[in-house]
Amino acid sequence: MTSNLIVGLETTFCQDLPSKLDKLYEERISCIVAPLFHPRFRRDANVISDNRDGPETRSDLVLDSRGWTSSVVGLLSTWVDFDSSCELIRLTAEKVFKQEIAWASHLSLAAVMTPSLHATRSNANYARLLNQAATQAQYTQFWVKVPLYYPGKFDEDDPSFVETWEGWNSLRSMCEYNSKIYVALEITADLPDKRILDRWLGEPIAAVIIPTEIFLTNKKGYPTLSKMHQKFFLQLFQHKIRYFIKGRPYHHGRYLPYVQYLEHLWSTRSSCSDAKADFEAPYLDYLQAPLQPLMDNLESQTYETFEQDPVKYQQYEIAITQALADTPKDKVSIVMVVGAGRGPLVRCSLRAAEKAQRTIKMYAVEKNPNAVITLRNMKISEKWDNVKIIASDMRVWKAPEKADIMVSELLGSFGDNELSPECLDGAQAFLHENGISIPCRYTSFVAPISSSKLWNEVKSLKSVQSTHLKNFETPYVVRLHQIYSFARPQPCFTFDHPNRDTIIDNRRFHQLSFEVQENGVLHGLAGYFDSVLYGDTCISINPETLDLSPGMFSWFPIFFPLRTPLQVREGDLIDVCFWRQVGGGKVWYEWTVGINNTNWSPIHNPNGRSYWIGL
Amino acid sequence: MTSNLIVGLETTFCQDLPSKLDKLYEERISCIVAPLFHPRFRRDANVISDNRDGPETRSDLVLDSRGWTSSVVGLLSTWVDFDSSCELIRLTAEKVFKQEIAWASHLSLAAVMTPSLHATRSNANYARLLNQAATQAQYTQFWVKVPLYYPGKFDEDDPSFVETWEGWNSLRSMCEYNSKIYVALEITADLPDKRILDRWLGEPIAAVIIPTEIFLTNKKGYPTLSKMHQKFFLQLFQHKIRYFIKGRPYHHGRYLPYVQYLEHLWSTRSSCSDAKADFEAPYLDYLQAPLQPLMDNLESQTYETFEQDPVKYQQYEIAITQALADTPKDKVSIVMVVGAGRGPLVRCSLRAAEKAQRTIKMYAVEKNPNAVITLRNMKISEKWDNVKIIASDMRVWKAPEKADIMVSELLGSFGDNELSPECLDGAQAFLHENGISIPCRYTSFVAPISSSKLWNEVKSLKSVQSTHLKNFETPYVVRLHQIYSFARPQPCFTFDHPNRDTIIDNRRFHQLSFEVQENGVLHGLAGYFDSVLYGDTCISINPETLDLSPGMFSWFPIFFPLRTPLQVREGDLIDVCFWRQVGGGKVWYEWTVGINNTNWSPIHNPNGRSYWIGL
Repeated sequence: MTSNLIVGLETTFCQDLPSKLDKLYEERISCIVAPLFHPRFRRDANVISDNRDGPETRSDLVLDSRGWTSSVVGLLSTWVDFDSSCELIRLTAEKVFKQEIAWASHLSLAAVMTPSLHATRSNANYARLLNQAATQAQYTQFWVKVPLYYPGKFDEDDPSFVETWEGWNSLRSMCEYNSKIYVALEITADLPDKRILDRWLGEPIAAVIIPTEIFLTNKKGYPTLSKMHQKFFLQLFQHKIRYFIKGRPYHHGRYLPYVQYLEHLWSTRSSCSDAKADFEAPYLDYLQAPLQPLMDNLESQTYETFEQDPVKYQQYEIAITQALADTPKDKVSIVMVVGAGRGPLVRCSLRAAEKAQRTIKMYAVEKNPNAVITLRNMKISEKWDNVKIIASDMRVWKAPEKADIMVSELLGSFGDNELSPECLDGAQAFLHENGISIPCRYTSFVAPISSSKLWNEVKSLKSVQSTHLKNFETPYVVRLHQIYSFARPQPCFTFDHPNRDTIIDNRRFHQLSFEVQENGVLHGLAGYFDSVLYGDTCISINPETLDLSPGMFSWFPIFFPLRTPLQVREGDLIDVCFWRQVGGGKVWYEWTVGINNTNWSPIHNPNGRSYWIGL
Repeated sequence: MTSNLIVGLETTFCQDLPSKLDKLYEERISCIVAPLFHPRFRRDANVISDNRDGPETRSDLVLDSRGWTSSVVGLLSTWVDFDSSCELIRLTAEKVFKQEIAWASHLSLAAVMTPSLHATRSNANYARLLNQAATQAQYTQFWVKVPLYYPGKFDEDDPSFVETWEGWNSLRSMCEYNSKIYVALEITADLPDKRILDRWLGEPIAAVIIPTEIFLTNKKGYPTLSKMHQKFFLQLFQHKIRYFIKGRPYHHGRYLPYVQYLEHLWSTRSSCSDAKADFEAPYLDYLQAPLQPLMDNLESQTYETFEQDPVKYQQYEIAITQALADTPKDKVSIVMVVGAGRGPLVRCSLRAAEKAQRTIKMYAVEKNPNAVITLRNMKISEKWDNVKIIASDMRVWKAPEKADIMVSELLGSFGDNELSPECLDGAQAFLHENGISIPCRYTSFVAPISSSKLWNEVKSLKSVQSTHLKNFETPYVVRLHQIYSFARPQPCFTFDHPNRDTIIDNRRFHQLSFEVQENGVLHGLAGYFDSVLYGDTCISINPETLDLSPGMFSWFPIFFPLRTPLQVREGDLIDVCFWRQVGGGKVWYEWTVGINNTNWSPIHNPNGRSYWIGL
C-alpha cells in the first residue's frame, strides 16, 4: 500500500514543459502524461530521407534528466494504426512507434503510455511491437491505455458488446506477461458489473486515468464522484497506482478541486492501523517458500514472529480450558505440548489450568535443541515446576505415562503441509485412549484465482538451484493481494486426531469443481485452512470464515501456480485434482486443472520432482 | 513404414505360455497380450501382510528373458477402478497397478497394456499413476486401451455420446505427452466419421486390437472386413503398428484365416516403390534444421541430393525454354544462373537453348568456392564454351552486361526462408529492365496441424547449445507423416521478381483464419510453398496443388511448433499471425496462434531470439 496519493494530469502537446509543470504544481499535480511529438507531425514509412530544417519536437534540454524521469510520462502518437490491413499505414505506425520509443528512452522516461487497443481486431501487430520494445527496454515501462468500457457500447446484451479486458488479455498473452507492460485504466462514466471491476484488481494497473467529465457536481458546486465510482476508487487505493486527471477543468479552469476531491476520498480509506494490517503490509503478494520445520530447525526470529499473534493463543487457551473440563476430575491431568518451540503453548496450558481450576502435569516435547535451551531457561525464570522439558522428536519419544491432552501447533497455510498428520500419528502413541488432541481436526481449502502479478513473480524467480519448471511446481506462502477469485474456496483434505484407523494412510486425493462467473485467466490455486482446536473453538484463514478467529495473522495463504495460465469463460467448470502423496521419507502435493473436464494441464510436480516436504 | 506385418493375439490368462506361443506360431501369430495376474486374484489395499502359500502368478522361468521381451505384452488387471469415489477401491487399484507394473518390469516386458479409460470421468488418478510409472520406467512402454467407440454409444446426436479420443486427450495432456505412453486402439464394428478416424493418425498408436466379431464372412466362408474398415486399415498400415486379434476364433477354432486376411490386405497397400517414396521413407517425421545457405557453404552431399530430383529440373527446363522464346530474337540472349551450385541449372539452360533454338551466352555465379571448383571442371569436361564461371556473391558482383534471364533456385520449404528475396533483390541490379526472373513468384502456405508425435520430437530434442524454449521457437524441415490437418493450407507471404518497388521491403505480416471441423489439439503449423517459375510452369509442395510438379522431392514441408499445445473444438476459428522480420543482418519469423481471437499464445521467437537466418 502506498502512503501517498500521487495525482498527475494527462495533457495535450505542450512546448514549454517547465512552466506547465510549475503551474500544475500549484494545483498539487506533480506529474504529467504528455505527447512526445506533436500530433500534427505525421510521418510516412515511404519517405526515406527527411530534409526538414526545423526540429521534430521540443528539445531534451527543456528539463534535466531527473525532471524527465520523475515528472513526465510520454504519450505515444495515437493517430497511428498498428494493425491496419493497409501495409503502408501499418509500416508508418511501426516507424512512428519506434521513433517515439527511442526518443522516450533517450529522455530516460520512466514510462510511456501507448495507444488504446482496437476494439474488435486482434491487435497482434501492436502486441509484437510492444513485446519487442518491452524486451529491449532497459527500464522504461509501457502503460497500455484501456478504457473500462468502449465508448458507446454500454449494453451488455448487445452482441457487439466487447469487454475491454478481453483485448488487454490477448495483448499481454501474446507478450507472455512481459513484466514491463502495465495497464493504464481509463475510468468511464458508466461502470461495468462489480465482478468485472473486481477482475481488474488482479491486473498490473500502473495508472488510472480520470476524465473530468465523469465527475458530478455537488451542492456546493464542487466535483464529486458517484457512489459506485467511490467504491471502486477505494479498492484501487489499496494498490500502488498513479492517478491522472484528463480533460477540461470545468471548475474555474482549475484542476485543484478535482485533486482535493481525490485527496478527500483517499483520506476516507478504511483505517488500516490494526496489528494485522501493520504486520502484513510489507508482505503483500510477496512469495515465500513454505517452512520445512521437520528438516530445518526454526530460527529464533521465526518463533518470535509467530508468538506475536494476539488471537491464535487466545483460541488455544479457550480450547485447552474446555478440554481440561472434559478430562476426568479425580486425577491430575497430563498435558503434553508436542513441538513446544519457545513455550507459548506451555504458557497457554498453564493459564488454562488456572482458569479451569485443574491441577495439571505437563511435558513440553521439542526436537529443536536451540528452542530447548529457551524452554529450560523459562522453566527456571517462569517457575514451571509442573513442567518437564523433553528434548526429543515427538515421533520417537518413549513417554513414561499417557497424556490426557496433547497440544500442538504444527499446521501450515494449507493445513497439513507442515506434516502435522505424520507428527501427530507418531505422538498419539502416548495419548490416552480417551485422550484429546488439540487441534482435533483440520481441513485445507482451495480456490481458483487470477493474478498476473503473482504468476509473473513466480516466472521471474531466479536462482542457481531452481529452474523455471521447478518454480512453477512449488507452492508459495503469500499474502494474496492483487488477485481475483473465480469462486469461493471449497474444502480439500481433512485430517482428524487422534487417528484410530487400523492402517493410517495420510495420502489423499480430492477432485473439486468450480463454476466460473466471469471470463478470465486462471493463474493458480489459492490454498487456505481451518481447524477445530476443540469443541466449537476454531481457527481459520479461509476468507469465508475469518470470523472464527478474527485478527489472527500467523498464516498467510498458500499459492499453487499453474505452469501455463488457462483461459476460462463464464459458465465454464474449473476442475481441480489435488493429491497428497507420501513416500521415500517425503510428502508432496500434485495438482492439475482442467476446464469442463477437458483441456487438462500436465499434472504438476509428479513424484514430487520439484517440491516436497521432508519427514 | 514397416516392411512386415506383425500379428499378435490378445488372450485371457494362460498358465502355460510356452506351449500357447508354440501353438499360435503355427497360425502365424508371433506375440500375445496376456494378463499378468489371474483376474480372480483380487487384492485389497487394507490387507497388510499376505500369508498365502501358493504363488500369485506363473513363474518368470516359463520363458527366458528374450521370450518375455519379444513375445509378450502384459495386460494389466481390468477389474480395478483408479478413479472410484470410494477410497478403498481406489487404493486397491493403485496397489494392484504398482504390483503388476513392478512384475512387468521384472520380466523386462517391452510393453504393458493398461485398462480402458472411464467414459465419463476425468481419469485423473489413472493419469497420475500412469505418469508416475512412465516417468520411472526404464524402457517399458504403456499402451492405453482406447476403443474407437464406447460400446452402445453409436449415435452421435445423442447428448451422452462421448468421443473416446477426448478421454485419451485428457489423459495424455495430464501426463504431458510422456513419450512412453501410447494408444492401443480397439477397432469397433461401427466406425466413426472419416474425420475422426483421420485424427487418430496424428496420435502415437502402438497397437491395434481387432476383435474377431467385427469380421464379416465372405461367400467362401472366410473372414473379411467391411470396405470402411479396409480403408482405415490401409491408412494404419502406413504407420509402425502391431496388430492383435482378440476374441473367439469363429473359423473352425483357428486364427489363421484372420491372419491370412490381414496379410492379404497388407499386400494390397499402394505400391510405394517410386523414387519419391523411396527417397522419403527414412525421413518420415524426422526433424531437420533448415539450411543456412548464405552463412554456410553447402556440402557436396547436399548438392548431390538436390540434383537427384527428376521433376524440378524438367520444370526449370520448360520454364527457361518458354522464357527464351519471349526474349528478343535479334540478339544473343544473356542467361545468368545465380547460385549455380554444381551446375544443374546451367545444364537446364543449355538444354533449353537447344530446344528453343536460341543462341545464348551464360554466366554462372556461385559464392561457394568449393562448388566453383566443380563448375570450372565441368566447363572443361562438358565443353561449356559459352559459359563464364563467376566466383562471387550475386549480391555484390558487378556484371559486365545486363541479363535477359536470371535463373535461380534459392527457395526453401517455406518459399522465402532461405532468403531468396534478399539474394534476388541484389542480383536484379544486373537484370535488363525487361529481363525475366525464373522463378518470378513464390508464395508460402500455412496449415494448422495436430501431431503429438512431432511435438514430442521437438520436446525431446537435447543439445548443449539449445534450450527447451529455443527448440520450440525454431521451424523444422520435416517429411510430415503422423499428422492431422485441421484445415486446408492458406497462402501467407508472396514475393515477385524482379521487384520494381521504390523501396524494397521484404518484411511481411499476414493474419490467417482457419475453421476447425473436429475437436483436437493444435501442435503447430505446417508450412509449404508454391512458385511460378515462368508463365504457367510451376513447382509446388502445397499438398493441394502437388499436381503442378508431381513426383518432385527436393523439399519437405516445414513445421513451426507451438510451445504449448492448444485445445480446439469444432466450429472454433484458429487465428494465425505470421511475421517475416528483417534487421541486423538477419531474417526471422515470428508467429502466434489464437482461438476465436482470444486465448492467444505468446508471440514465438520475438526479435528472432531463438531462430534466425543470417544474411
